[in-house]
Amino acid sequence: MSIIVLGTVALDTVKTPLGSKNNLLGGSAAHFSMSARLFTQVNLVAIIGEDFPQPYIQFLHQRGIVLTSLMQEKGKTFKWEGSYEGDLNTALTHHTELGVLTIFKPRITAAQRGIKNIFLANVDPDIQRHLLTHMQNPHLVGLDSMNYWIQHKRSALKRVLKKIDIFVANDQEARSLSGEQNLIKAAQCLSSYGPKMVLIKKGEHGVLFYRKKQTFALPAYPIRKVVDPTGAGDTFAGGFMGYLAKARKLDERTIKRALAYGTIAASFNVEDFGLYRTSRLTHADLQNRLRKFKNCFHL
Amino acid sequence: MSIIVLGTVALDTVKTPLGSKNNLLGGSAAHFSMSARLFTQVNLVAIIGEDFPQPYIQFLHQRGIVLTSLMQEKGKTFKWEGSYEGDLNTALTHHTELGVLTIFKPRITAAQRGIKNIFLANVDPDIQRHLLTHMQNPHLVGLDSMNYWIQHKRSALKRVLKKIDIFVANDQEARSLSGEQNLIKAAQCLSSYGPKMVLIKKGEHGVLFYRKKQTFALPAYPIRKVVDPTGAGDTFAGGFMGYLAKARKLDERTIKRALAYGTIAASFNVEDFGLYRTSRLTHADLQNRLRKFKNCFHL
Repeated sequence: MSIIVLGTVALDTVKTPLGSKNNLLGGSAAHFSMSARLFTQVNLVAIIGEDFPQPYIQFLHQRGIVLTSLMQEKGKTFKWEGSYEGDLNTALTHHTELGVLTIFKPRITAAQRGIKNIFLANVDPDIQRHLLTHMQNPHLVGLDSMNYWIQHKRSALKRVLKKIDIFVANDQEARSLSGEQNLIKAAQCLSSYGPKMVLIKKGEHGVLFYRKKQTFALPAYPIRKVVDPTGAGDTFAGGFMGYLAKARKLDERTIKRALAYGTIAASFNVEDFGLYRTSRLTHADLQNRLRKFKNCFHL
Repeated sequence: MSIIVLGTVALDTVKTPLGSKNNLLGGSAAHFSMSARLFTQVNLVAIIGEDFPQPYIQFLHQRGIVLTSLMQEKGKTFKWEGSYEGDLNTALTHHTELGVLTIFKPRITAAQRGIKNIFLANVDPDIQRHLLTHMQNPHLVGLDSMNYWIQHKRSALKRVLKKIDIFVANDQEARSLSGEQNLIKAAQCLSSYGPKMVLIKKGEHGVLFYRKKQTFALPAYPIRKVVDPTGAGDTFAGGFMGYLAKARKLDERTIKRALAYGTIAASFNVEDFGLYRTSRLTHADLQNRLRKFKNCFHL
């Protein structure tokens, strides 16, 4: 089954200990799409400005991503400028320019309204809810957010959380929104807001999954040379949700496999800047690394 | 095969969000022993003062720990006072009283000199080297240290690292001693100082193991109610080294199994203060939780 992702398509300027790049194709929906496309057809819902480079549209199109609802409007594309230092776990934001994001009202086609798998990547929670109300018969809805919305639009965020199945958050966000330090307790608390499943991303430390009576942890796939972690969380979510959309099941085994695919996809993402690595990724690459990853756990 | 552990036996006063306790039996060698004893006979080498409560000696003795080389000297027992806040990952030390530790010169029996499995838990690296030079035919030597020695006795520490097989460090220590932020690179660098194997403990985020061409990561066993993390790292090392001493092999599968036992033992340790939980731990408890842990990884 296909999937629809709402989020940002951005121009990222990033500096890491291994180099720097200007105006890379980035954004939550772009990173999500690049891994989800390996499992299912991805419909991207986002907004770009007049300044958005035409080759980037081609780039997404050539990777099979459906761009019918990628709106191009007067104004500038959303831009993010940031850097990483030390252990590369935390991004320092130097500058953001919202541009057309401030006027974003997602519009989708009649056919897209019937898509059953939905991922609401990080944008304003009111926009997330707006899209969700237009979906006819959601089967599986995932949502990601960020500290900014937790601080500034907490009630809007909690309102949309009631309507979703899977909440994807990083450890800081999970702690901040729940007020719980222990991540299992945090997940349990977040689940009480609505989502049956909570997935806490811990960057280089892997991921924690929570569903009533089930808690799994997986480490990250160990990567020696992390070049650029930007988008790793969205790449993870893309692999995870993409696999679930394909599998059409939510049993324990399927969830674990989805977590593993998300982990593997994210491990490729951090090996190069922006979408350089994940845009060349094949299903065979995923399988190969999954085999090595599984081998870690022959205990 | 039996194991000999050099380290501290201490009186710990600890405060966590879930309570506080005074003068608990603690110390690196005590925590290590309490999990290693589940796999092999443990010989404890440490020093205590005149003020050390007799019931604590009985307590260790009753758990089968060989106390022949637990020296009691004039003066006070080593005392540590600390607390944990927030995510319980970092201990805040309020006070340490070295007491008899300042005059510690380990003495072991002739029979103990022949023991082939050795763990040098956290004490002054010169004391670690002193014991090691008295061992006749070391087969497998593990070592743990701490930031204090990395900062103040770096060359003594590097000298003893040349003589050991397995270096056990937490992530901060690994980064600080190697100067590398990426933990795989840090492990590789630390291995170049001598130890063939490097094991980096990441607290609630699990563990990373490095040996030439092999890197494994395991998450921690998810614990909802962490009461007191004091000694979790030493409990981990005890399970890990204890299992290796019993298995008498160092192949990939054995290492992974040892990492899993260390992880499981540590997960019990944090569920209660001091040695309350691990002193009641049985091999059946370990097996039970190991089964659940392995089940996480049926990917």
